[in-house]
Formats: sequence, C-alpha cells, structure tokens
Amino acid sequence: MKKTILLTALVLNGLTLFAQSNDEKNIKLFYKKALTEAKCYSWLEYLSNDIGSRLSGSKGAAEAVEYTKRQLESIGLDKVYLQEVMVPHWVRGEKETAYILDGKVKTNVPICALGGSVATPKTGLTAEIIEVQGIKELAELGTDKVKGKIVFYNRPMNPENIETFTSYGACVDQRYAGAKEAAKLGAVGTIVRSMNLRLDDFPHTGAQSYGDLPKEQYIPTAAISTNGAELLSKTLKANPALKFYFKQSCETLPDVLSHNVVGELTGTVSPENIMVVGGHLDSWDLADGSHDDGAGVVQSMEAIRILKNLNYKPKNTIRVVLFMNEENGGKGGAKYEEISKQNKENHIFALESDSGGFSPRGFSIEADDVNLKKIQGFKDFFEPYLVHSFTIGHAGSDISHLTSKAIVKAGLKPDSQRYFDYHHAANDKFDAINKRELELGAATMTSLLYLIDQTGIVIPAAN
Amino acid sequence: MKKTILLTALVLNGLTLFAQSNDEKNIKLFYKKALTEAKCYSWLEYLSNDIGSRLSGSKGAAEAVEYTKRQLESIGLDKVYLQEVMVPHWVRGEKETAYILDGKVKTNVPICALGGSVATPKTGLTAEIIEVQGIKELAELGTDKVKGKIVFYNRPMNPENIETFTSYGACVDQRYAGAKEAAKLGAVGTIVRSMNLRLDDFPHTGAQSYGDLPKEQYIPTAAISTNGAELLSKTLKANPALKFYFKQSCETLPDVLSHNVVGELTGTVSPENIMVVGGHLDSWDLADGSHDDGAGVVQSMEAIRILKNLNYKPKNTIRVVLFMNEENGGKGGAKYEEISKQNKENHIFALESDSGGFSPRGFSIEADDVNLKKIQGFKDFFEPYLVHSFTIGHAGSDISHLTSKAIVKAGLKPDSQRYFDYHHAANDKFDAINKRELELGAATMTSLLYLIDQTGIVIPAAN
Repeated sequence: MKKTILLTALVLNGLTLFAQSNDEKNIKLFYKKALTEAKCYSWLEYLSNDIGSRLSGSKGAAEAVEYTKRQLESIGLDKVYLQEVMVPHWVRGEKETAYILDGKVKTNVPICALGGSVATPKTGLTAEIIEVQGIKELAELGTDKVKGKIVFYNRPMNPENIETFTSYGACVDQRYAGAKEAAKLGAVGTIVRSMNLRLDDFPHTGAQSYGDLPKEQYIPTAAISTNGAELLSKTLKANPALKFYFKQSCETLPDVLSHNVVGELTGTVSPENIMVVGGHLDSWDLADGSHDDGAGVVQSMEAIRILKNLNYKPKNTIRVVLFMNEENGGKGGAKYEEISKQNKENHIFALESDSGGFSPRGFSIEADDVNLKKIQGFKDFFEPYLVHSFTIGHAGSDISHLTSKAIVKAGLKPDSQRYFDYHHAANDKFDAINKRELELGAATMTSLLYLIDQTGIVIPAAN
Repeated sequence: MKKTILLTALVLNGLTLFAQSNDEKNIKLFYKKALTEAKCYSWLEYLSNDIGSRLSGSKGAAEAVEYTKRQLESIGLDKVYLQEVMVPHWVRGEKETAYILDGKVKTNVPICALGGSVATPKTGLTAEIIEVQGIKELAELGTDKVKGKIVFYNRPMNPENIETFTSYGACVDQRYAGAKEAAKLGAVGTIVRSMNLRLDDFPHTGAQSYGDLPKEQYIPTAAISTNGAELLSKTLKANPALKFYFKQSCETLPDVLSHNVVGELTGTVSPENIMVVGGHLDSWDLADGSHDDGAGVVQSMEAIRILKNLNYKPKNTIRVVLFMNEENGGKGGAKYEEISKQNKENHIFALESDSGGFSPRGFSIEADDVNLKKIQGFKDFFEPYLVHSFTIGHAGSDISHLTSKAIVKAGLKPDSQRYFDYHHAANDKFDAINKRELELGAATMTSLLYLIDQTGIVIPAAN
C-alpha cells in the first residue's frame, strides 16, 4: 500500500536537526512544567476528596462534569462545551453481606455486587455453591450439576504475566459473562473471585452483562475478595455440601441525562484534523476512582493546559474529552463518535489515559505498521524520561468508538504492577496516587500529542 | 588497552544461538519462580512486622542477623556464616519535640534527630533561627550573622530531575555536613528540611557527621518535615526575629559487636572468582525499613534461593552478603572488604539492591566502557520484563568498599518516584511494598547474576 505523509514538510538535513533539537527542548519544558507547576494533582484531589465516587447517574458524576468544565474554562481554551448523553443508572443499595455456611459455622466474607446485577431476594439467597475455574468448565458440568446452585468462578489472575492487563484480560470473562452463562444452566447466583493479583480483603466490582438473556432469568452476581475466595475454595474442598449466603439490594433505575466534557485548542494549520486526548469522568461507586480514571481525566486536562499555558499553537485541533460512562455502558464514547460523524469530523489521533496514575512506561498503540514505526521513531525523545515501551496493544475503551479512516490511537501505559491492587475497589483513593508519577504521565502524554501534532500521521494514499 | 575475555568460550554461530535461546528460557524461569513461589515477600514481612526497625546496635539488628542466617541455612547453600564487625550504637532517646515561637504563638512542628546528633540540653534549646539554602549561603553569611542562632537549611529537592536520586545527591550535604559547618560559625543547632519531594508531615532522619570538629563544638541537629519547613520558612519571612525551640535526647553509646550475614554457592568452574549480591540489614530506627533496605536484603536472598532451587551450578562463587551498618558508618561493607583482602579473594562482580523495592527499571553500573557495553548487550534479555535502563552510575554503598582489580559493580535501579516519600521516615513500612514489584526486582537481579556468571566480565590483559 502506498503511503503519503500528512502535514509533514520535507526539510533539509540542517533544518531537521534544528527541529529535532527544538523538539527536545519543548519536551523538556513539558516535563519541567508538569513537575513544577502542574494542576493535575490538585484537580485530582478535588475530584477524589471533595466530589468522591462518580458512577454514571450519580450526584458525584454530575458534580464532576460541572467541576471539570469550570476548570477547563479557567485554562482559556478556544472552546469548552458539554455533550449530552443518556447513561445507565445502576445503584448498589445497602452494603452487601455474605457468609459461608459450613454446617452450623457461619463465616462472613467480603463481597460487592457487580455493576448491573440484580438484587437477591430481600432476605438474601442461600444455596449450595459449586466452584469452577471458568465458563468452559461450567459448560462441561452442564445443567444437572449447576441447577439451583450458586456458581463460584475462582480462576485467579495469572501472576506470571509481566503486564498485569494481560492477566486481567484472561480472567474478566468470568466477571462480565459469568452470570449470564450460569443462569442459562439454572444457577441461582454467581460469586466471582475479584480481579486482583494480591490476596486481600477488598472485593472488586466491575461491569457484568446478562447479554440477551430474558429479564426473568437474571440472577444476582457479586465479587468476593481474593482472601474470601481462597477461604471459600478451601472450605468447599473440605465440605462440598456447604452453603453460601449473600444479600444485595442493587437495582437499575431509568437512564439519566449526563454529559461528556469537551475542550478545544483550535488548529492553526489544519483545524479540520482533530487530535483527542482523554480519560473517563465516571468511576465505580466503591471509592473515589483516583486511579480509574480520575488520573486519566486530570492528566488529559493537564496536557492541554501545558500546551495552552506555553501559548503553543497546534497545527491540528487538539481536543480534550472527558468521557462519561466508560465503566458500565460506554455511552459517552459512543455518543462522542455519533456526534463526530454527524459533524463529519476527521480524527487523526486519539490518546487515552485509563490505566492508572503510575509511573509512565510507554504507550500501547493501535496503528498500522507505518504509523507504529513512526511513533517508535520518537523513542529517543522519551529515553531521558525513562519512557521506553512503544508496542501494539489496546489504546483505550472510550476512544475505541472512534472510526475515522486513518486514525492512530495510543493509550498511556503506566507501570501496571499496582493497578489491580486498587482497580474498582474501595481502596482506589487519592492516597494511592503519587504526585510525581501522575505528573510524569501528564508530561508523557503532552509530549506525544506535541510530536504527533508537529509531524502528523501517515495516511494511506487515496489510490 | 588490550582486553581478553574471561570465562567466555568462542562459539560457532549455531551454538551461540542455542545458548541465547537457553538463556532466554532460564531468565523466563527466574521471573516465573519469582512471581509464583518467591519467599522474599514473606521474609520481608517478618523482617518488617515481626522484627521491625534494625538500626546498628539495636535488638532488631541482632534479631535480623539471626533470622536471615536461619533463612539462608534453610535454602541449602554451600556455606552460611557471620562476619563479626563492631558498629556504632546511636540511640534516639525520647521522641523529639519542636515548635516555632512567633511572639507568644507556639506552633508545633514535626522533627526527628539526625543520626549521630548530640542531644539538646535537657530542657531543650531556644534560639533565633536563620534560613539558608545551603552551606555556601551559610558561609557567605559568616559568623556575625550565625553565632548563637539555629541554622535552618531549607534547600528543597529539585522536582525537575526525573531520577529522584539526582535531587537527593544535590541536597543531602545540608543533612550530612550542615551541623559541622554551622557549628564552625558558632551556631547552636541546625534544622534541616527533610529529603523528601512530597509535602507531608514525616521528618526524615539520616546520617550526619561532625567530621573533625572537636567534641565540645558538636551541636544538635534535626530534620523537619517538608510541611514543617514550608511553615517555618513562611513564618520566618513574616517575622525574622521569631524563635525556634527543639528538644532531643539522642546519644552515641559505645560501639557494639554486630555481624554481616554471608551465604555462598561455591563456583564449579572458577570458585576463586566471587560474585556478590547484597543489601544492608540495618535500617533507620523510625520505621521498619521495608524499602531501605529490607527489600534489598530479601531480594538478594531470593536471587540466590532461585538459583539454588533450580539446582543451578554457578561457574563462579555466588555469595549473598547482608551488610550491617550501611546507614550510619558503613562498617559492615568495610569489614567485608577487609576480610576479603586478608583472604586474597578476587571479586569479579558485585550487585547491590538499596534503592527500594519498586518496579525494576534497570541497573546503575560502575564499569569501564567495555564491560558497560557488555552489560548493555544484555538489554534484549530484559526487554520482555520492561527493564530498559543500563547506565553508568552509583552501584551501592556497601559494595563501594570492594576494590578487586577488575570488579564490575551494578545497583538495581527500581522506579525512583516514590522512594523519597518513605526514605528514612516513619512510613517506610511493609504496607508500602508491592509484592510483585519486589519479586520482579529479585528476578531482575537473578537474571543479571546469571548472565554475568555465564559470560564472565572482560578484564584488562596483564600486558
């Protein structure tokens, strides 16, 4: 396939060298500003400690929309506006309770309802419980062995993978589709081992879907802490006939109106070419979502703040988008794309930060070979900042909706070792954030935005 | 200078490829074992939570010697033994108190005595206080402006450096030599801003030295938390005549007998060539020293445990050394070298972990160009584990004593962003450790030990 260079002038060697040196200086400046005068940490403190959790449809989510809009307005961008979007409104209700009933011995275990789950009966649900390592094993058991029971999905995240997201991806089907599959076989509920590499007492919530199951077949589903899962598994081995009790009162209310928050620096050369940088405003309800994805929100805001503050005039339009409803519906990302299509917009690049506010290690890139190599060609710029990894991989849920013809996507890739200690759990709070790590991530994002804005992406030739 | 290759056979291309593939497999195995069955985390839990702080001369330090010796014995090494070493015995005494006295308003601020400091008078010390940004500024002020006052060193760590150790190195003279220099000008005490990039309420202790000052000129010196330093500086600007009060009852007792702990896997080809892997057993007294340097201790033990557990027969002798007294004297490192010299030992390689138990990012290397390039040639082996940085730099305090002719030294380089949040402060505790990060560091150390053992180092030719 023939390629042509978009927005990139051919330059003589001398000029290239000058430009390179200028880029190095600018990138150094981005990091300096991020480490000495960034606002992202104080923004995140407000989002986490003053607003708190921000599940779609909640008061916190609405406050976060207003707060971040005000902050973007204070930066002095060319445009700041909201995009209306209807979002699901699931509420947890009372704190869940659960115990193992082994003969007459009751042992409490920490659980939390999974997002989108139905409630148990008001007095709770007691049944025998059967452990499986996944949906495949469940299917092999068949209806006879499952009917009337609670299914306990207990496949742990694989500790051998270096990138923890790999282990998450290999486990999360139990959480997302476990209830649906168990319901088909007549199970009365499911309990899922938390997506957590540590052994601790925090149950981790997250999205689940009943898919195309008729509503009357929905069964309640909850996550159990990893320590709870270990205990349950051990106790079950000793007494396979034990019973499990859990009670939850969550419910799905009618959809509510919410918003994406958008801010723009209009391009000075090709304003029709749009570069998005974003994260998602909503969080789960158990904590403040400081890592998921408060960090990504404030880093995206910081990236555009740094550029504006330096009076940088982007060639392309740079747009910060704070998406609503990534966690349980993806309605914000879908709405953004819908409006973008209506407006016949052309996105050339999208950058998302939704993997926590830890030390930046690189980018996870969705691009063809030519653009991947182009971005990998920036490696030397990032070396002084210990940002080394530029590999093909998932860039981000919110920007996954974007379908412009030649778009390149990237996700900030922070160090992933601690991420699942906090992910969707009650400890995803501001004190788990390190200011410098957050700021370094913001500077890393600013630098990639800048380099792409300066050099463009490679698009397939029309012929 | 001519070079010859030590221990490295010339091999045909095919064999090289085979060997490479074998190395890759072995390294993968090291990481797998570290992430699935390591003992380092539970060892560290014991060191931190059962033993606790381990300042030289303390009960904790003695217990740590016994505990780690027992654990090394349980691994089944060829030799495990102690090396006697006399160490300083400084004790903090009662918890320190300090306040700013601004007119009649007393505001308490968190301080802690610096290691090796003398006490204040029993009722404390009150004096005017003068802020400087460092020893140079102090010298310019001269005796007239300093005499009878407390000197407040307030130069912060520079947030612009990406590697936080760079900022530490550029600040720590205030802590180490600040009291000595202030005493020379007639100051009655010094207060030093904690070596911490965060603003928080933890004072950070650390070594200080009066150098060749006569004992009667020693003045008490303490660290103040960064928040305390900010407050003091601000209050001083408004009222330069304010007074500062502090009280501490620390003292230096007679030296006591302590130990380095040593374990060995004897080399099967060149047992006379010794490779050291180590960290330091002692910690400061304010917390459990989980990062500094419990992490390095258990990672070093883990590295040799993994090799032994895999029944690896090293070509060279691999020796784990848990040094005593790195924090306030370096007597363990010096004693190790002294004994090594007596025994006419030849060290070819030394690897230290003393920069915290965070995600491993690479190694800081002390080597000539040829050996540096050799180690950098291992980069591809480490790429799958996101270990990228192989640069010249300080390898470690304990191994700095080693003076074998052709020794190559390396320090594990973990992510440094969070290190000074905890360094020498009351929050350097087990809950600041992430199990996987600790284990990844251990695997990274194991891999470098293995690669050096397999391929040797390049030594200068005799002629």
